[in-house]
Amino acid sequence: MSQNSQKKPVIAVVGAGPGIGEAVARRFVAEGYVVALLARTEDKLQTMVQGIDADFGKGSARYYLTDLRIEEQVISSFKSIRAELGTVQVLIYNAGARRVNGRSILDTTSEEFENFTKINLFGAFWSTKCVLPDMLAAERGTIIFTGATGSLRGMPGLSSFSPGKFGLRSLAQVITREYQSKGIHGAHIIIDGPVDGKLVGGVTRRKWEREGEKEKLNEVDAYIMQPTDLAGIYWYLHTQPRSAWTQELDVRAQKETMFSKL
Amino acid sequence: MSQNSQKKPVIAVVGAGPGIGEAVARRFVAEGYVVALLARTEDKLQTMVQGIDADFGKGSARYYLTDLRIEEQVISSFKSIRAELGTVQVLIYNAGARRVNGRSILDTTSEEFENFTKINLFGAFWSTKCVLPDMLAAERGTIIFTGATGSLRGMPGLSSFSPGKFGLRSLAQVITREYQSKGIHGAHIIIDGPVDGKLVGGVTRRKWEREGEKEKLNEVDAYIMQPTDLAGIYWYLHTQPRSAWTQELDVRAQKETMFSKL
Amino acid sequence: MSQNSQKKPVIAVVGAGPGIGEAVARRFVAEGYVVALLARTEDKLQTMVQGIDADFGKGSARYYLTDLRIEEQVISSFKSIRAELGTVQVLIYNAGARRVNGRSILDTTSEEFENFTKINLFGAFWSTKCVLPDMLAAERGTIIFTGATGSLRGMPGLSSFSPGKFGLRSLAQVITREYQSKGIHGAHIIIDGPVDGKLVGGVTRRKWEREGEKEKLNEVDAYIMQPTDLAGIYWYLHTQPRSAWTQELDVRAQKETMFSKL
Amino acid sequence: MSQNSQKKPVIAVVGAGPGIGEAVARRFVAEGYVVALLARTEDKLQTMVQGIDADFGKGSARYYLTDLRIEEQVISSFKSIRAELGTVQVLIYNAGARRVNGRSILDTTSEEFENFTKINLFGAFWSTKCVLPDMLAAERGTIIFTGATGSLRGMPGLSSFSPGKFGLRSLAQVITREYQSKGIHGAHIIIDGPVDGKLVGGVTRRKWEREGEKEKLNEVDAYIMQPTDLAGIYWYLHTQPRSAWTQELDVRAQKETMFSKL
Repeated sequence: MSQNSQKKPVIAVVGAGPGIGEAVARRFVAEGYVVALLARTEDKLQTMVQGIDADFGKGSARYYLTDLRIEEQVISSFKSIRAELGTVQVLIYNAGARRVNGRSILDTTSEEFENFTKINLFGAFWSTKCVLPDMLAAERGTIIFTGATGSLRGMPGLSSFSPGKFGLRSLAQVITREYQSKGIHGAHIIIDGPVDGKLVGGVTRRKWEREGEKEKLNEVDAYIMQPTDLAGIYWYLHTQPRSAWTQELDVRAQKETMFSKL
Repeated sequence: MSQNSQKKPVIAVVGAGPGIGEAVARRFVAEGYVVALLARTEDKLQTMVQGIDADFGKGSARYYLTDLRIEEQVISSFKSIRAELGTVQVLIYNAGARRVNGRSILDTTSEEFENFTKINLFGAFWSTKCVLPDMLAAERGTIIFTGATGSLRGMPGLSSFSPGKFGLRSLAQVITREYQSKGIHGAHIIIDGPVDGKLVGGVTRRKWEREGEKEKLNEVDAYIMQPTDLAGIYWYLHTQPRSAWTQELDVRAQKETMFSKL
Repeated sequence: MSQNSQKKPVIAVVGAGPGIGEAVARRFVAEGYVVALLARTEDKLQTMVQGIDADFGKGSARYYLTDLRIEEQVISSFKSIRAELGTVQVLIYNAGARRVNGRSILDTTSEEFENFTKINLFGAFWSTKCVLPDMLAAERGTIIFTGATGSLRGMPGLSSFSPGKFGLRSLAQVITREYQSKGIHGAHIIIDGPVDGKLVGGVTRRKWEREGEKEKLNEVDAYIMQPTDLAGIYWYLHTQPRSAWTQELDVRAQKETMFSKL
Repeated sequence: MSQNSQKKPVIAVVGAGPGIGEAVARRFVAEGYVVALLARTEDKLQTMVQGIDADFGKGSARYYLTDLRIEEQVISSFKSIRAELGTVQVLIYNAGARRVNGRSILDTTSEEFENFTKINLFGAFWSTKCVLPDMLAAERGTIIFTGATGSLRGMPGLSSFSPGKFGLRSLAQVITREYQSKGIHGAHIIIDGPVDGKLVGGVTRRKWEREGEKEKLNEVDAYIMQPTDLAGIYWYLHTQPRSAWTQELDVRAQKETMFSKL
């Protein structure tokens, strides 16, 4: 039985952590969507769903516990989403598994390589296959993959991360070339630098906003990407008119000095 | 004496033809800007200024006759803009000289190579030098260059076009790396495909909109980029929050099948 | 007990088919190497080893039956190579699994995606881990991966091929960045177009050469890449002086008109 | 009257300084070519010609004083080469004007921008137009452009250098796409890092070689590119068989840690 009685359009956010994933979810919910959150850690998912429901009304979000390394779980989650919320109009694949402190190839286990590559690449392939049929039937849909600096350059310490991210970028291009003319907007966002994790969910930011701490907000924003600002890019891509669709863009904070892509 | 008595922010659109250039101008004027249009053909400039003034109010636009191959004229125009409208906050370098039917290197004259490269690249360098000091003093500013398929690939028949466009992309990257941390948002838009020229200025589109010809509009939009939709990208980049600035993105119509960039 | 009594340097060619793989093997054997061939089809491997031994002397080549999708088999083969031939100085990862007639994402099974990505990417990671310790101990070694048009562009019909090849390119870059300063030359060759498969092993070519059919040879060569010519690139990269090492190059036949990379 | 009585094949090295240019010249002369050296400083040209003639026999080299910013001088030099040595089979465009200490855009004069871009890009266009007709008539020829780190990334301080180098890369691609099928091998070498300038001409190196200082030679070679080693790449590209032509490759010293391209 559908839990989406208002028949809101459905967005699935895969790899929904309390950073970009949650911010994208909140943005689309604010625009009238109902969101399905897919990830592996139940308590984090619960917290996100409760927060979104509290802010936007009950039934705005549902979570689907999914180990993205296991195809059966991905398929199963999307089946449940379809049954409970309806067909997915927007797929955001935001999962990205990486070590904070990169290890050399010799210090990277094959298990880590496989686990990370499954999460960074295979899960996107499986998820795409789950949502494409309904999107093609509707002749519309948006599929956005989250890339990283490591999507463009194989940097030291990234052997368990970068190959999967390169592959994800390739998959985004294949989606565009195979399905864009049929109404599917495939896109790839290169997040080139660190994303603020402590301000996730907007709590600190909104506190500062309430207190009128514009200086503080502005200064932090210049140095580190804010999930809410990044979420705006996902929304922007989704709403581009069909005569002007972007396939790839990069993004970084204003005072970021690495410019990994350039 | 300033002709910008309301002290509106100033945008300079260089290479302002009745396509992307005019559409960008109209979009920024609609958002509260006054626009300076720089190009070489006076009657086209006059028509654009009259049209913009008619739609948005007298004084919304001014034109500055400029041969972009000649540095002195570029400098002179920007001096006049500064005196008449005020300091420039946004620079759009949209000039692009190319043959519709490309010729091989041997059939391309050195004069054509030099003229086109001056317009495609040198003019951007000179224009950037004109606006940077005021932008740096204000610690803010936006500089957007219009790229093309030929910015990424040296295709046959493009020897008088592509080298300049490659160079322009390089210059956009240098601007970003040198000045982004000082508040200047430099960006490069790769227009990957043909842009609708017959609907320029929105006349036909608005006629169809008035007549409710949604089908027609929608179908055309799918195959060819609309200047007004492209203008939205320039505005979007200009208004990105400083924690999430894009340096480069591509764009094409939904049913475009060339995908030159991919 | 070592089967390499002359203590010749050892090259391992992974993904050794009767095309580039065999040609590379023959070239290195001609230069004084002993070659280990790794692949999955025993009769092809046997034919190659017999041919190489016949032309260059017994003991010039050995084969190691390996399913490149299975890490244990890769590890086991490299252990045997080490025991039987000695430490590997040169690793060529030439495996590439693809459909001749590409299928869309929806028509690509997850099994195919996984099998191909394992062969195209995972096998290279495992093989690299097997040979790196000895190379680092010797402070020298060459690791070359074979790329394709699909390494740079996610083209339609390539969803089971291109992501793995993108990933392989990333891995080649990581190897270079992590280990080049320690003496390991990592490189990536982009084979941009079709490779002659019917002339493999040089049989037809040598017949033509014997018959003095220079016209025929020359004409064919202009349109399709010859494995023996490609093998020259692998040898060239391996023998580059250390002050001038190439990390990546592309290659295509002279009259190739696709220029997929450009 | 031809000064090339032995009818040796002719190579023109444009931007012939006592580094890569001279080393390429020497390599081709050693392989049986007669070389035309084009540059602006007469005493350096004289020294190079005298050195080459001393080592390889009188008449091995001639110089043509040329200001590469001025088309007439380029055309005039190539006319003289044709009259005195014969038609050019190989064109190496090696000119590269840059500041050692880069300046920001605002500190870069328009004169510098124009002078450098003329040398880095325009001279290559003019030179190519001079040699193409004879190459096309002969259905063979090699045109190699020397690129740099700045050919791929617009880095700070490089506004007067990088745009021209980007443009040069584009021009190399156009040459390949327009003329490769007609027998012209166009290629672009990305020299990614510093080149040894003090060992130019091989004087110091040969001294060390005579003295058996292998350790010293080897250590230096690991950190900085040697012109003679780079020259080997130009020769290698020129001699690639027509079934396997490379359009672009990068190169750096083994212990180079910048990896600007990667």
